[in-house]
Amino acid sequence: MKAARETRAAWRVALGNIIFNADTPAGRVFDLGLILAIFVSVLTVMLDSVASVGRRYGPLLNDIELGLTALFTVEYLLRLLTARHARHYARSFFGVVDILSILPSYLALLLPAAQFLLIVRVLRLLRIFRIFKLVRFLSEASVLQQALQASLAKITVFIATVLTLVTIIGTLMYVIEGPQNGFTSIPTSIYWAIVTLTTVGYGDIAPKTGLGKTLASLAMILGYGIIAVPTGIVTVSLAQAQRGVQPDRVCPRCGLRGHTRDALYCSRCGEKLPGSLGQMP
Amino acid sequence: MKAARETRAAWRVALGNIIFNADTPAGRVFDLGLILAIFVSVLTVMLDSVASVGRRYGPLLNDIELGLTALFTVEYLLRLLTARHARHYARSFFGVVDILSILPSYLALLLPAAQFLLIVRVLRLLRIFRIFKLVRFLSEASVLQQALQASLAKITVFIATVLTLVTIIGTLMYVIEGPQNGFTSIPTSIYWAIVTLTTVGYGDIAPKTGLGKTLASLAMILGYGIIAVPTGIVTVSLAQAQRGVQPDRVCPRCGLRGHTRDALYCSRCGEKLPGSLGQMP
Amino acid sequence: MKAARETRAAWRVALGNIIFNADTPAGRVFDLGLILAIFVSVLTVMLDSVASVGRRYGPLLNDIELGLTALFTVEYLLRLLTARHARHYARSFFGVVDILSILPSYLALLLPAAQFLLIVRVLRLLRIFRIFKLVRFLSEASVLQQALQASLAKITVFIATVLTLVTIIGTLMYVIEGPQNGFTSIPTSIYWAIVTLTTVGYGDIAPKTGLGKTLASLAMILGYGIIAVPTGIVTVSLAQAQRGVQPDRVCPRCGLRGHTRDALYCSRCGEKLPGSLGQMP
Amino acid sequence: MKAARETRAAWRVALGNIIFNADTPAGRVFDLGLILAIFVSVLTVMLDSVASVGRRYGPLLNDIELGLTALFTVEYLLRLLTARHARHYARSFFGVVDILSILPSYLALLLPAAQFLLIVRVLRLLRIFRIFKLVRFLSEASVLQQALQASLAKITVFIATVLTLVTIIGTLMYVIEGPQNGFTSIPTSIYWAIVTLTTVGYGDIAPKTGLGKTLASLAMILGYGIIAVPTGIVTVSLAQAQRGVQPDRVCPRCGLRGHTRDALYCSRCGEKLPGSLGQMP
Repeated sequence: MKAARETRAAWRVALGNIIFNADTPAGRVFDLGLILAIFVSVLTVMLDSVASVGRRYGPLLNDIELGLTALFTVEYLLRLLTARHARHYARSFFGVVDILSILPSYLALLLPAAQFLLIVRVLRLLRIFRIFKLVRFLSEASVLQQALQASLAKITVFIATVLTLVTIIGTLMYVIEGPQNGFTSIPTSIYWAIVTLTTVGYGDIAPKTGLGKTLASLAMILGYGIIAVPTGIVTVSLAQAQRGVQPDRVCPRCGLRGHTRDALYCSRCGEKLPGSLGQMP
Repeated sequence: MKAARETRAAWRVALGNIIFNADTPAGRVFDLGLILAIFVSVLTVMLDSVASVGRRYGPLLNDIELGLTALFTVEYLLRLLTARHARHYARSFFGVVDILSILPSYLALLLPAAQFLLIVRVLRLLRIFRIFKLVRFLSEASVLQQALQASLAKITVFIATVLTLVTIIGTLMYVIEGPQNGFTSIPTSIYWAIVTLTTVGYGDIAPKTGLGKTLASLAMILGYGIIAVPTGIVTVSLAQAQRGVQPDRVCPRCGLRGHTRDALYCSRCGEKLPGSLGQMP
Repeated sequence: MKAARETRAAWRVALGNIIFNADTPAGRVFDLGLILAIFVSVLTVMLDSVASVGRRYGPLLNDIELGLTALFTVEYLLRLLTARHARHYARSFFGVVDILSILPSYLALLLPAAQFLLIVRVLRLLRIFRIFKLVRFLSEASVLQQALQASLAKITVFIATVLTLVTIIGTLMYVIEGPQNGFTSIPTSIYWAIVTLTTVGYGDIAPKTGLGKTLASLAMILGYGIIAVPTGIVTVSLAQAQRGVQPDRVCPRCGLRGHTRDALYCSRCGEKLPGSLGQMP
Repeated sequence: MKAARETRAAWRVALGNIIFNADTPAGRVFDLGLILAIFVSVLTVMLDSVASVGRRYGPLLNDIELGLTALFTVEYLLRLLTARHARHYARSFFGVVDILSILPSYLALLLPAAQFLLIVRVLRLLRIFRIFKLVRFLSEASVLQQALQASLAKITVFIATVLTLVTIIGTLMYVIEGPQNGFTSIPTSIYWAIVTLTTVGYGDIAPKTGLGKTLASLAMILGYGIIAVPTGIVTVSLAQAQRGVQPDRVCPRCGLRGHTRDALYCSRCGEKLPGSLGQMP
C-alpha cells in the first residue's frame, strides 16, 4: 500500500480506503454494517428452513434476502471499481467468496426451487473472516496459522495412522458383531469406529457381544490416548511460533538449526547469524 | 487498606475485619459459616425440585429457605454498614451477587409461584468464589486468569472459526439428510454439528444416509483435531504466565518484546530494563 | 534400610527380602506369583457376576476364591512377621489394602449373601500398585505425582468453577425444559449438565425445545474450551517436574524463585544457592 | 547400503532400486502405483460387504480382487528376488505384512466361505506406511515415535491406573444399579465405566438411580481431568524430542543429565561433553 497510483481519481482512492481498510472511522462503520448485513442474511436462510417460521414469514424473509443481495451486488461492484488491481481482487480468496455469496440468489431467480444453492449462500459467513485481516486479530491468527502449517507434516502422519486404525478396527467389528447387531457393512463399521475413536459416541450403533465390547473398550482407551498426539503437536508448534523459532534458520558456521527470529548470534558457537533484524545500533 | 478511617467507630472496623477478611480466626469462622449456609440454601432449592421430596418436605424446606434469607439479609446490611465505601461495595461484582441472592426470595413472597426466580437464587453459589479472594488460591486463580486473558484474542479467532464451521457443516447436513432423517431445520442441524464437533454425541439426531455418515465422519475427525488448538493456546499462555513473561515489556534499546517479570536486563542487548523490580542491591 | 536389626533371626531377614523387595531373583518370582494370584482372584469375582457363568461354574469359582484367600492370609501373616516394624506396616497404605482384601472373604463366610462385600474384594487390584514401588516405574510415577501435586491448587479452583457452572446451567435447563422433557428435577438437570460439559453425552436426557438446544450448544462450546484448562495445567507442571524446577527454591540475595534442582547459582544475580547438590568438585 | 554386492546382476540392482527406493522417478511411479492398487483392493473388500453392492457387483469385485492378488504376488516375488538379503526381508515387519496380504486370497480359494480371512486382507493397508520410510515424513514420524517411546513408562503407569479405576468404578456400579438397570454383570459394568471415563458415552447403558448418577458424575469429572495426563506426557516428550534432548546424555564431570543432541559443553559446569557431533572446527 506504499505507492498509491496518482492517476486514479481521488474519490476512488477515498472510497477504496473505506471499503478495504478499517483504519478510518468511516471504514470501521462500513465494516460493522457489512458484518451486520451478513449475519441478517445468514439468519434469513436459517429461519426460512424452520417449517413453522417459513410457512408464516416466507415472503418477508424472501424480500429481506432480495434486498441484501442487491446491497451485496452494489458492494461487489464497488470493490471491483476501487480495488488497486480489479483482476487481482476478483481472483483472490475473498473475491471468489464475495461473488459466490451473490451468484446463487440470481441463479435461484432463474432456476427456482434449486435447494442446493442455499448451501452456497451460507458461505457468506466466510466473509466475516475479512475483518481478521484488518484488526489486531491479525497477528494472533497468523501465529495460529504458522503453528498449524509447521505441524502439517506431523498431522498428516497422525491422520493416516488414525484412518488405517479405524479401517482395521471397523473391519474386525464387522466380522465379530455382524449385520445382525447393526454393523451392516464394513463402511458402516468404519463409521462406528470413527464415532468411537473420536469419543463422539452417538450410540446408534453399539457392540452387543462380549468380544465386540472388549474390542470396543480397547479402541476407546486407544482413542483416549491418541487424542494426546495432535494436542502435543499443536502445543509444541504454537510455543515455537510464539517464541519466534524459525526451523529453517541455520548457523552458517556450526550448522545449528532452529534459531528464533530475534536471535542475533548463534546460541552455540556465537557466530553472527545472517538475516538478523538489524534493529540494533 | 493502608489508611484506616480514624473517625469510624472501633466496633465497625472490628466487625468489618471479621466479615471482609479471613486472616483472623473469627473471620475464618465467619467465612466457613457463610459457605455452609450457601450450600444448605442451594441444596434446599435442589431438593425442592425433586417431586417426591418436594411433596413431603416442601413446607420444611420453605422454612429453612426463609430463615437463611433472613440471615443473608442481615449479613448484607452488615456488609453495607462496615464496608469502607458502602456505595463502592454495593456496585462491586460481589455486592451485586449478594443483593441478587436475597432479592428473589422477597419478590417470591409478593408474587408467589414465580418459578423463574428460583434460578437467581442459585446464583448464590457465585458467592463461594469470594473465598478465593482470601486464601492461598488467590495467586493460582490469578495465574489462570492471566493466562486466559492473554489467550483471549486467539480464542476469539478460534471460536469464530468453529461457529462458521458448524454453520456450514450443519447446512450441508440439512441438505443431505433432510427433515425425514431428523435434520428438521438448519438451526437443528447446526445444533447437531455442535454436538458432533465437540464430541458430545447425544445420538438423538444421527445421520442415516451414506453421504451423511461420510460428512459426519469428516466432521468428527476435524473436531478431534480442532480440540488441540484451544489446548495448545491455553498451555502456552499458562507456561508464559507461570514464568512471568510479560508480552508488553519491551527493551527500550533493541525493541525485543516479552521479557519476564523477573528480568533486569534485556536478554539480547544487555540494556537495563525499565520497571525492574529493584530487589537487587 | 541402613541399620538392620542384628537380633532378628537370619531367616526372617531373608524371607522379608523376598517378600518386600524385588531386587533378588526370588523376590521377583514372588512378586510375579502374587500379581498372577491377584488377577485370578479379581477375574473370579468378575466371572461369578456373569449370570450364565455363575450358574454353571459357581462352586468351582468359590473354591478358587477360598484357596486364594487362604494364600493371601498366609502372605499377610508372613508380611507381619518379617516386616521391620510390624505395627508400622499394618498401618501403612498397603498394609490396610492387604487386610481389606482378605477380611471380606471371612466375613462372607459368617454372614452369607452380603453382596456389598464383593466390592471390597476388588480393592485387591490396588495391591498391583505395590510393584510400582519396586521397579523402574518408580521415578516415572514420582514425576507424575509431583506434577499433579504441584497443580493441586489450580485444579481445585478449576473443579470449583466447573461445579458452579454445572449447577447454574442445570438449574437454567430445569426451568427451560422442565419435567415434561426429561429434566425431572434440578439434581437430574445437573447430572445432564455434567454429562454434557464433560462431552460424555449419553443422550438419555437431551434438550427438546429451541431455547434448550441453544443453551446446550453454549454449554458444549464452553465445555470444549474448558477441557483445555486442566490439560494446560498438567502439561506445564509436568514440564517443570521433568526439568526439576522447585517452586520453593529461592535465591537468598535477590529473591528469585523457582530454581531447578540442578542449579548451583542464581540465574539472575549469580549468588550461590543454598542446598546445592554438591556434586561439583 | 554402503557396500553393494558386486556379484549381483546389474538388472537386479536396478530393479531393487525401483522397488525399494523412492528416490528415482521410476521408484516414485512404482510406489504411487502400489498405493493405488492397495486402495483399490481395500475398497473392493469394503464394497463387497455392502449388501446391495455385493449382490449386484459381487463377481466383478471378485475378479478385481483376483487380478490384484496376482499383481501383489508378482511384486512379492520380485521383492524376494531383488532384496539384498532375501531372508532378512522375508522376516522383517513389512515382509510379513506383504505375505499376509496375499496368503488369505489363496487360502480362500482352497477353503471357500472363510469369512474371517477377509480381515487379514485389510491388513494390506499397513503397507501404506512403507511410504513413510521413503519421503520427508520420515523425520516427522521419527520425532513422533521418539516422543511416544520416551513416554512409554509414564503411559504404562497411566493405563494401569485407568484400568484399576474402571474395574473399581464398574464393580461399584454393578452393586448400586444392578442387572435390572442394564448393568447385567461386572464385565458389562466395566465396559460402561470405560465408555464413560473415555467420554465416549454411547448411552446404551446409563445409570437410572440417584446414587448411580452421582457416582457416574464423579467418574465423568475424573475422566475429564484424567485426559489431561496423557496429553501432558506426550506434549512434554514431544517438546524434548523436538529440541533434541537426550535423557541419557550425562556430563562426565558433574553428572547433569538430559543434554540436547546439539550441546557441546555441559550447561552447568562447562565440561566438554563426550559424543559431541564434532561439526565445530
